[in-house]
Amino acid sequence: MDFSVTVLGISSAVPNSKRNPSSQIVKLHNNFFLVDCGEGTQSQLRRNHFKFSKICHIFISHLHGDHVFGLFGLLSTFSLLGRSRDLHIYANSKLKELIDYHNQFFNNKLTYPIIFHSLIEGKSEVVLETDAYFVKAFPMKHSIPVHGFRFQEKKRLRKIDKSRLDECRIPISEIVNIKKGLDFIKDNGEIIPNQYLTFDVPKPRSYAYCSDTAYYPDMLNEINNLDLLFHESTFCNSDIKRAEETKHSTAKQAATIAKKSAAKQLLLGHFSTRYKDLSLLEVEAQAIFQNTKIAEEGKRYDIKENM
Amino acid sequence: MDFSVTVLGISSAVPNSKRNPSSQIVKLHNNFFLVDCGEGTQSQLRRNHFKFSKICHIFISHLHGDHVFGLFGLLSTFSLLGRSRDLHIYANSKLKELIDYHNQFFNNKLTYPIIFHSLIEGKSEVVLETDAYFVKAFPMKHSIPVHGFRFQEKKRLRKIDKSRLDECRIPISEIVNIKKGLDFIKDNGEIIPNQYLTFDVPKPRSYAYCSDTAYYPDMLNEINNLDLLFHESTFCNSDIKRAEETKHSTAKQAATIAKKSAAKQLLLGHFSTRYKDLSLLEVEAQAIFQNTKIAEEGKRYDIKENM
Repeated sequence: MDFSVTVLGISSAVPNSKRNPSSQIVKLHNNFFLVDCGEGTQSQLRRNHFKFSKICHIFISHLHGDHVFGLFGLLSTFSLLGRSRDLHIYANSKLKELIDYHNQFFNNKLTYPIIFHSLIEGKSEVVLETDAYFVKAFPMKHSIPVHGFRFQEKKRLRKIDKSRLDECRIPISEIVNIKKGLDFIKDNGEIIPNQYLTFDVPKPRSYAYCSDTAYYPDMLNEINNLDLLFHESTFCNSDIKRAEETKHSTAKQAATIAKKSAAKQLLLGHFSTRYKDLSLLEVEAQAIFQNTKIAEEGKRYDIKENM
Repeated sequence: MDFSVTVLGISSAVPNSKRNPSSQIVKLHNNFFLVDCGEGTQSQLRRNHFKFSKICHIFISHLHGDHVFGLFGLLSTFSLLGRSRDLHIYANSKLKELIDYHNQFFNNKLTYPIIFHSLIEGKSEVVLETDAYFVKAFPMKHSIPVHGFRFQEKKRLRKIDKSRLDECRIPISEIVNIKKGLDFIKDNGEIIPNQYLTFDVPKPRSYAYCSDTAYYPDMLNEINNLDLLFHESTFCNSDIKRAEETKHSTAKQAATIAKKSAAKQLLLGHFSTRYKDLSLLEVEAQAIFQNTKIAEEGKRYDIKENM
């Protein structure tokens, strides 16, 4: 089962010739979740060969232009391509007003329904859930209301070893319990351990997107034990004053969050254009949290299955 | 004196991985005029090394998203960079409402004044004029109100040959008339021809931007004798039905306009993504008007001085 993140933009507010504003695709099983939609996202999607028709869920962290200006073009293109599938948007409720205003202004007749899911300021909640995974929005700390998103697989049922089932004459009615991990107790009281009847399955994987936010340890319980954490790192620690003024994080702070949350890996993004050489930020973070990487646009980061 | 066009986007409504939506920089003397501002224009400006602070005039042909969606990011970036110079925007008056709505929505405090010049539906008018050039907006034909723009140098004053002025003892008070091309008449009635006293100066140059528009010969008097004509060519003539439905032009129609208007050169742009190989459109146009080129993104087209 796929679980990967393709980063489409690593720039903060002002893009430059080589870096795009925020957006990324989280591929979770068969879904292509778009997270944030800065200007140029549709071109970045094209360049990275993502099919527009497969994007059915868009998560917007907050209503700053560098996270939403690409939405107008994308929604318009969906219509021009004749989309009919539902499009779910998860964002602060004000975004709906802006989309409605745009549609009226440009006399857009959307060919598909938008299903808008309002994120409530300061509130943590599961906004999308299936048997296999859920997506949880949680508040962070910025100059305006902002949510991070945790993409979380659920614990899978154990895989039945059919030959053992036959050998031990397990009735069909017991299979559900055995998949859940229970031992089987025969009529004579003999216990057949679940391990004997089933195979191990991969552990649930998780990823969280945290941008934009100041250093905010209050969110640690929302992002514990991640396989991969994307955390904004707009500044170096030498510019911490600027980070505090603008409610952004430094690389050191992002690494501290990764360490405290017991993440397995940290991806840094949302860089100020003042830094031409991003390895400075990488080195700064690695001093706190070794397994840190600078996110690269167009690169896919796979979260591998692990027993 | 510079006069050039750098095309930043050649795509019609739906951009693809290699083509951006409409925008271009017309460099006229010391001005960098931005014409249309599709999504991604600010990145294209960066890639092509245009300084944001030098852009003081933005001309918007019409209010379709692929010509304006880049404006929100650009206006926001101007503020983030601390711009203080006036910004003139020439567009349908409705655009002001949209900009105002955006600024209010995103709580943008612009660091510079926007001076908005409303283009009136169906009206031709000079919207910017100096001693050396003028810009004229003129109506074209599309599904919504649209204006083309003619960038026109004025006739220059002739250049004085100082040695001849001294030789013929021309009084200083006469210099203005001689620069204008008048002969000098001595007190004894002798005529000194202007040609003897002055050097030739380059002829006035002109460029027009015509996008988006259906085939519209009514505008021929607005675009006569251009050095360079940019005309949209969304479709091949085999798709003329689609062109008529959407009020766009075919390559053949663009070439017919170039021929009838006695342009020196034609640049085609605003291509539908259905055409992977644009040479089809070039060949189609060249059959009518030989000096036709497909506009290339990032390429500067110089309009050279000519005596």
